[in-house]
Amino acid sequence: MFSAQTYQERREILKGSVDHGILLFLGNIENPVNFEDNAYYFRQDSTYLYYFGIQEPKIAAIIDIDENKTIVFGDELSIDDIVWMGRQETLKEKSFKAGVQDTLPYSQLFNYIQKVQSSGRKVHYLPPYQSSNKIILSDLLGIKISELQPSVEMIKAIVKQRSVKEAQEIVQIENAVNVSNEMHLLAMRTAKPGIKEYEIANAIQYLAANKECQMSYPPIVTINGGILHNHYRLNTLQSGDLFLNDSGAETAMGYAGDLTRTFPVDNTFSTKQKEMYEIVLNAFNNAQQLLKPGIRFKDIHLKASQYLVEGLIDLGLMKGNPEEAVKNHAHTLFFQCGLGHMMGLDVHDMEDLGEQYVGYTEEEPKDTQTFGLKSLRLGRALEPGFVLTVEPGIYIIPELIDIWQAENKNADFINYDKVNEYRNFGGVRIEDNFLITNDGYRLLGNGLIKTVEEIENYRSEHLS
Amino acid sequence: MFSAQTYQERREILKGSVDHGILLFLGNIENPVNFEDNAYYFRQDSTYLYYFGIQEPKIAAIIDIDENKTIVFGDELSIDDIVWMGRQETLKEKSFKAGVQDTLPYSQLFNYIQKVQSSGRKVHYLPPYQSSNKIILSDLLGIKISELQPSVEMIKAIVKQRSVKEAQEIVQIENAVNVSNEMHLLAMRTAKPGIKEYEIANAIQYLAANKECQMSYPPIVTINGGILHNHYRLNTLQSGDLFLNDSGAETAMGYAGDLTRTFPVDNTFSTKQKEMYEIVLNAFNNAQQLLKPGIRFKDIHLKASQYLVEGLIDLGLMKGNPEEAVKNHAHTLFFQCGLGHMMGLDVHDMEDLGEQYVGYTEEEPKDTQTFGLKSLRLGRALEPGFVLTVEPGIYIIPELIDIWQAENKNADFINYDKVNEYRNFGGVRIEDNFLITNDGYRLLGNGLIKTVEEIENYRSEHLS
Repeated sequence: MFSAQTYQERREILKGSVDHGILLFLGNIENPVNFEDNAYYFRQDSTYLYYFGIQEPKIAAIIDIDENKTIVFGDELSIDDIVWMGRQETLKEKSFKAGVQDTLPYSQLFNYIQKVQSSGRKVHYLPPYQSSNKIILSDLLGIKISELQPSVEMIKAIVKQRSVKEAQEIVQIENAVNVSNEMHLLAMRTAKPGIKEYEIANAIQYLAANKECQMSYPPIVTINGGILHNHYRLNTLQSGDLFLNDSGAETAMGYAGDLTRTFPVDNTFSTKQKEMYEIVLNAFNNAQQLLKPGIRFKDIHLKASQYLVEGLIDLGLMKGNPEEAVKNHAHTLFFQCGLGHMMGLDVHDMEDLGEQYVGYTEEEPKDTQTFGLKSLRLGRALEPGFVLTVEPGIYIIPELIDIWQAENKNADFINYDKVNEYRNFGGVRIEDNFLITNDGYRLLGNGLIKTVEEIENYRSEHLS
Repeated sequence: MFSAQTYQERREILKGSVDHGILLFLGNIENPVNFEDNAYYFRQDSTYLYYFGIQEPKIAAIIDIDENKTIVFGDELSIDDIVWMGRQETLKEKSFKAGVQDTLPYSQLFNYIQKVQSSGRKVHYLPPYQSSNKIILSDLLGIKISELQPSVEMIKAIVKQRSVKEAQEIVQIENAVNVSNEMHLLAMRTAKPGIKEYEIANAIQYLAANKECQMSYPPIVTINGGILHNHYRLNTLQSGDLFLNDSGAETAMGYAGDLTRTFPVDNTFSTKQKEMYEIVLNAFNNAQQLLKPGIRFKDIHLKASQYLVEGLIDLGLMKGNPEEAVKNHAHTLFFQCGLGHMMGLDVHDMEDLGEQYVGYTEEEPKDTQTFGLKSLRLGRALEPGFVLTVEPGIYIIPELIDIWQAENKNADFINYDKVNEYRNFGGVRIEDNFLITNDGYRLLGNGLIKTVEEIENYRSEHLS
């Protein structure tokens, strides 16, 4: 946990940005795997972590703005619990460390909310993502799950605050990134013909676990990098394959790292692999250099897309005017997703609160229709203190090529014959994590090798 | 998956044991960790696995007894999904492998249930443990979550069937036990002064993962074996500590192993540790030999308790007549829990369906009041084909000693002075998995070293 003062100050700021009513925070529960008492590892809700820091299942809290009160709700261990689970720090003690003096049994939350509602005051709450919290909210508020109405005022106030990272949060994120760096180096030392994808996933997870880290998301560890959401891990690496590793660690305090590297299963890149890799790397480097306060991330995304197009034109897969190609979304045959997203206590930071609020503004809302842009999680102007990923890529998806080609889509910009020569190429992505500073950006963590030369050298030196 | 015939036959048997109506099966969903798209690893519901074998989130099925129909409900990948996730086996194909010809989109389940209900026929369903399925059931049936009424007829029919394991299931369980054996040997090679508990937990999990296994439950890997439900893993092992490892693997098909071994962090047991260990081992061996069809497991539990008491009398911690001591539940100061439980697709097999139905009978219901017996998950007479754990233990719990001593509880049987000399002893548990055969029992798996000599020899030979 951070200091009690940290949590107090965060709550004070939040209180100042919502006018009236009470703010309700629900922690997460332990999710059953196959029966009630057999649970997945516990992960506290990130907003709860941010304002209270207590890593305990089945607790809640309120900030009563009108009456200037903060209460943590939860149940202390009974003597029966202590017999079975041992003596532990009490909820009272934990709450005290979060700067909260008042704790009440969980059941009292119902009474509290009822009183607030019956006095006509507003209960602000966030969009629930765990089904258990949907049920609790419905019970607490006496409304159907389908009719729950999260507080936009509360969401906006929290997003505003959590978007700008404190120095101590950046330290945490850098810890996560540095463990992620080590995970990626280990993968580079491990990946070779004959190894299974899951063996690499397991090895990096083991490394992170020994540093008391979880995975911040299920790792994408694959020889089919062209498949964007690929969690199949039973393939055997073979000579000639390109290997994509998208994985990151989460620190014990809940902060995420999120890195991607792509490299050949052989010790060296083939010409084809190298050419494609250099295109993505060039887009990455140029995108990175554009990072600074004030610039819209959507514009960096489009710029990066244009760099990709220019490279693909040189290679013969695309043609025509690069700017026009991007305007016509022709690049989305190869780059179907977004250039990056906010990162913090969640790998897609605050995604539970709504992409529109986190990544966009009312003046410039998200484009939810256009292929490509609808997958861009972050579009708004950047501010100092934002932490985000930059992750351009080229993904060759045979199914998508066939659809486009059948429609002769964007035929002015795409050489389908040439593209089809790459049908089985797979995908390349390069991803790092950045902090937006007052006058530009800073790469987070100690830095991870990225050029063709660096990767080839490292692998030829270290391959076990 | 097993053969289509397997699933067809299982469903036929089930159909034959429920009179009318439809049987509704809900698969599990992917549970979000900290936002909707960031999920824990997927684990299918065990009953769904048993009757349909399909490992896919957000699917359901019905067996319509009156109309003799079986339908799997779920959504095929859209072309958008295929672009993002790659081409995969269709639900139709998977269902076919489970012997089901009819598949319908998930949304059709609502219509189907409505029709059944409006025609006055009964919808049988099981107790939901995941909140998402509570919500779905409530929506499907149009009743409040708190008013859901699972079908006892369906529960009993399923429990009866799943309790008796098929030969191919026993093969699966033995695979799980053998991976678990390896996990335990690795722990014995790893545990030494200076190592952290979580390092051992991580190592065994890594070993299992490389054999495509999950943990069948969160491992208890601790120097405080006296704490029964101990998932704290930050302690450093020290000379003089006793180390308890309760962990098991789950195969890719979902079958569990569940083993416990206890050994000293030093290469050899101290006299005190050895004496206590031998008491538990003696109770274990004697309990094992009682396993056979017809005997009530509760009676084996009480016999094992008596063996523990006899040993504790020899050691001076207890006194008086052992049989009387057990009748008075005096042993529960040291052995607070049950001797074992059913095991199969769940480590506590079918616990989601209700302990009363799985471990007890209507004629001899569970004792839910008495300390000790209320934690005994299995009490009923054994039958050939049952798979279960045997896991006696002695747990020294300072908090419990203080409570009993203050009440002078069972003072005729307990030497509190002597007991207090063991306050910091910790705990010993020994656990193996057995199949009940026609005339007795069979240890599952290849066998894992258990005697003081075996453990000391193995550790002195292999400690890295």
